Amino acid sequence: MSGWLIKDTLVVPLAGARPWFHGDIAVIDDRIVDVGEDLTPQYNDLKKIPGKGFITMPGLVNAHTHGAMNILRGVGDDMPLHQWLFDRIFPLEDRLTAETARAGCMSAVLEMIRSGTTAFSDAYFFMDEMAKTVLESGIRANLSRGLQDLPLGDTHRLHEAREFIRHWQEKADGRIRCWLAPHAPFTCSTDYLKKVLDMAVELNVGLNIHVAETREEFNNSIKEFDMTPVERLDSLGFFDHVPVLAAHCVWLSEEDRQILKAKKVRVVHNPQSNMKLGSGIAPIPALMANGVAVALGTDGAASNNNLDMWEEIRAAALLHKANLANPTIMPAGQVLQMTGPIGASAIGFEECGTIEAGQKADLIMIDLDQPNMRPMYDPISQLVYSTGAGNVDTVMVDGQLLMRHREMLTLDEEKILYMVQAAGNELTGQ
Amino acid sequence: MSGWLIKDTLVVPLAGARPWFHGDIAVIDDRIVDVGEDLTPQYNDLKKIPGKGFITMPGLVNAHTHGAMNILRGVGDDMPLHQWLFDRIFPLEDRLTAETARAGCMSAVLEMIRSGTTAFSDAYFFMDEMAKTVLESGIRANLSRGLQDLPLGDTHRLHEAREFIRHWQEKADGRIRCWLAPHAPFTCSTDYLKKVLDMAVELNVGLNIHVAETREEFNNSIKEFDMTPVERLDSLGFFDHVPVLAAHCVWLSEEDRQILKAKKVRVVHNPQSNMKLGSGIAPIPALMANGVAVALGTDGAASNNNLDMWEEIRAAALLHKANLANPTIMPAGQVLQMTGPIGASAIGFEECGTIEAGQKADLIMIDLDQPNMRPMYDPISQLVYSTGAGNVDTVMVDGQLLMRHREMLTLDEEKILYMVQAAGNELTGQ
Repeated sequence: MSGWLIKDTLVVPLAGARPWFHGDIAVIDDRIVDVGEDLTPQYNDLKKIPGKGFITMPGLVNAHTHGAMNILRGVGDDMPLHQWLFDRIFPLEDRLTAETARAGCMSAVLEMIRSGTTAFSDAYFFMDEMAKTVLESGIRANLSRGLQDLPLGDTHRLHEAREFIRHWQEKADGRIRCWLAPHAPFTCSTDYLKKVLDMAVELNVGLNIHVAETREEFNNSIKEFDMTPVERLDSLGFFDHVPVLAAHCVWLSEEDRQILKAKKVRVVHNPQSNMKLGSGIAPIPALMANGVAVALGTDGAASNNNLDMWEEIRAAALLHKANLANPTIMPAGQVLQMTGPIGASAIGFEECGTIEAGQKADLIMIDLDQPNMRPMYDPISQLVYSTGAGNVDTVMVDGQLLMRHREMLTLDEEKILYMVQAAGNELTGQ
Repeated sequence: MSGWLIKDTLVVPLAGARPWFHGDIAVIDDRIVDVGEDLTPQYNDLKKIPGKGFITMPGLVNAHTHGAMNILRGVGDDMPLHQWLFDRIFPLEDRLTAETARAGCMSAVLEMIRSGTTAFSDAYFFMDEMAKTVLESGIRANLSRGLQDLPLGDTHRLHEAREFIRHWQEKADGRIRCWLAPHAPFTCSTDYLKKVLDMAVELNVGLNIHVAETREEFNNSIKEFDMTPVERLDSLGFFDHVPVLAAHCVWLSEEDRQILKAKKVRVVHNPQSNMKLGSGIAPIPALMANGVAVALGTDGAASNNNLDMWEEIRAAALLHKANLANPTIMPAGQVLQMTGPIGASAIGFEECGTIEAGQKADLIMIDLDQPNMRPMYDPISQLVYSTGAGNVDTVMVDGQLLMRHREMLTLDEEKILYMVQAAGNELTGQ
């Protein structure tokens, strides 16, 4: 048997009746095959991983990012959204090449693995570079070529998206899933949105879109279409045929919330990005109380400025308590679900996000013998309110170790760090 | 000559005209003696510290914490303030002993050094344990025995505070400074506040107090005294004689803000604690626009739940952008000042908080060759929006290395982690 037996660990399964328990986890090939009190008798042939002093939990799911944008980390901060986009981001994006994008992708995946993310959803351009990075690194991802036809039309994106799906769908042992990603209602004409929807139905893939990120988008949609962004998408049947992942959803009417609920739209909350850009505070507690599935994401490094999901966990748990002046809102257990089973399902990997027999072996081990982790009374509280990227010791995806005792096993860290700085200097002319 | 020459580093001095530059830093005994382009000719006798690939900056100042409360990390979350205090915190505090408090103090100082904090302000009980920990660990601190006479009177605290100051003032080569810490306006009678103020004047020490943390405190003060908490303190002359450090200041009238400005009160913003307890959002941008000196703090681990100042930096930079829907509020450079010179002065260490000749050698080195730190274009942006505790490589206080390449040099980390978990288990009966 080829696999792993994680021994005597503190399991936080994010499934089942018990929030945590001590036990063993048996992994064969790409799957968790058993979880229980002492599995040595049945699985003595498996290589042992000592788990004492560690929390073992599902890997974190980053449900909304743009990995290649790591190359743009910190190129513009503390400025109005329009100036940030038009003076900094767009001009640099125009100068991106496959090579610079690849440096960004490698940097992003390295950063995600190091901080405990095992699966992510990504939409951008140069997606071949990201797919190759996912293939090589061993991480799991939902990838989409970003699509838009406003203001300049689309001569190539939709074609590239089809080719991308044809080439990469279910590749890397199924670690890559491909969807379609119309950028946002305000960057896609109504005809174009219909065309993309038709293609999604034809190819049987999900849709990944930014929705109602800013008040300006919300107001402009009402002005131009007499509909909110959500209503406009709904009027096109956008939510009726394939799974839809809607990032941000900061500006929603009461009717919008009902639509998202009724149509089972998966929402991605990106608290730090929304905070940094001053976009507003998404009504996440209200959505979740309505039963809407809300995942968590970092957004790209240009607006965050890192891909550390622990910070998003903390921000999601704290921001709404502050905003609603209610310390009982967004309790720790609920926030962890967003990064586990809810996040995994939201991005199309229902077989991930929990530690249960039959699930994919995507898991991380958190070192408890570090100053911010002792004393520990409640592992769920500790994970949400005290744990950081530096506490992640071991990362496994699909049964393969990607990081062990903080050493990267599939990526050449030194080379990537050098490469991304060199590419960034060239891009920005520094 | 005994000291250090940090070579070829990226200096972020938090003082002077240049936000950053490449150069050397010479340290002799407890002081920075020179900062410049190539100091090898003058200081070749000093031991070299290679600084290439590192940002060298002033150590972070945590201007408001209760270190011993590390023993209470995560004992209660996601509950209303009153329930949290009365059902969880107070009963456990009643059971604290010098030994359990000491475990908390050791854990807190370990955690602070590891995450790059070189000076902090602390008010609690069992302060001898904290003073001993500061002495042994090499960190710098402003320490005060917490004082209150409501509801049960005070038979011993004020006496202990006087003894504590007599014993510890300016000890540990001046790394310890002692103030007086009346807990809050609502836990101190007016006569008692006057008595504490008189003692502060007599002993020539500053005052450290919680002010207007919750809406309830603000409203009750108006009901009982027909004055806001700030107005009531001001009416007693509380701000007129010695330096005052006022933690929280979440609920302030326009008049309160004018008083804080006119009386040069030093405010400490504790964003994560305020968020977690749902206390409200302090009007920090307005205070700072008024010229009030605002420092940053973590508060205690029972309401945070860690002592990581990088999280407070991020929260301070992001929270107000979200709250005011303005991405230009609280720019990165301004937030860093709060943890450097503003924080150091606020807690009574004017000779710390910047990298300049003549200042105390309290500095940290940030490893740039980590995934969340590349590419780097603007060091100030990177420090505020991407850096985390795990990036801190080296910590120096008073010219002494406390951590080098992440190895603790003055504290026995393994022993402390064991001790604080054991003490915590005993305290909570787990």
